[in-house]
Amino acid sequence: MQRFGDGMGDRHADAGRRAVQDDEVERLRHALNEEQQRHLRLRADFDNVRRRASRELEAAHRDGQRAALLPLLPVLDSLERALAAGSTDPDFYEGVAATHRLFVKALHEAGADPVESVGRPFDPKVHEGVATMPSRNAEPGTVVREIRRGWRLGNELLRPAQVVVAAPREESDSWR
Amino acid sequence: MQRFGDGMGDRHADAGRRAVQDDEVERLRHALNEEQQRHLRLRADFDNVRRRASRELEAAHRDGQRAALLPLLPVLDSLERALAAGSTDPDFYEGVAATHRLFVKALHEAGADPVESVGRPFDPKVHEGVATMPSRNAEPGTVVREIRRGWRLGNELLRPAQVVVAAPREESDSWR
Repeated sequence: MQRFGDGMGDRHADAGRRAVQDDEVERLRHALNEEQQRHLRLRADFDNVRRRASRELEAAHRDGQRAALLPLLPVLDSLERALAAGSTDPDFYEGVAATHRLFVKALHEAGADPVESVGRPFDPKVHEGVATMPSRNAEPGTVVREIRRGWRLGNELLRPAQVVVAAPREESDSWR
Repeated sequence: MQRFGDGMGDRHADAGRRAVQDDEVERLRHALNEEQQRHLRLRADFDNVRRRASRELEAAHRDGQRAALLPLLPVLDSLERALAAGSTDPDFYEGVAATHRLFVKALHEAGADPVESVGRPFDPKVHEGVATMPSRNAEPGTVVREIRRGWRLGNELLRPAQVVVAAPREESDSWR
């Protein structure tokens, strides 16, 4: 009886322990699953941040180039105006003309290249129309004059070219 | 006997199940701990990457500025050489001189400023000594002439100034 009773007591205690352990297993499984999910989410965030970081680095580099180049474009404009005015001193003029060629080359090295304009169809993405002009030779909508040179940095626009565009032919033209 | 035997059999089975469950609890605790450690490491990596990313963005921006500005400095040198040679055409000369002033101002806007040199103690961090020269007026080790202007970008050096430095006074001087 004693032993049997003990045995029954042990079995009840076992059942209790087993229930506690079942709970513990359940709790641990749940916690492990939560933790694994948490890890996966953090890993996904991490990958996103890394991917974005590499794009952002390129953008920051380009912004740095842009910030450095933009203030220098009016300097080239000024040099070109000076050269366009001409000079009575050919030696000095040639020295300045050589500097101008060096300037355009340096801008190319720095990543900047001129926007093509005269003879091209007007393109609002890179051209800023400042006037239209009737033209006998040019197709309507073609750039016929460049007022200020435009510049691009790789595939991006630094500043648009300011241009004059061939006007649509007036109907009166075809009546004559 | 039967029951008792069954009871003993159950108790053996219970003990076996308990041992299996003990193993399972142990395994789960271990796995959970591992998973938590893994999460902490990933979180630390993540924080590092984020901290580094903000520093790297600044560095990339500066690299972009540097890449854009460096090729343009020889253009300013060339313009300065032309101006130093002088001209017989005062109007043209003044146009070019105005362009030069605009250039220096644009470099400042772009973040670049000249390195101070003449009259300053020679500083190997920003000066590149190309010669020494005896000098009666300048302290030995003082920059007495600038051959090529140096430029900095914020706190960083773009290119050093090339300078001539006052030579140490010879002992024979003090004997006289």
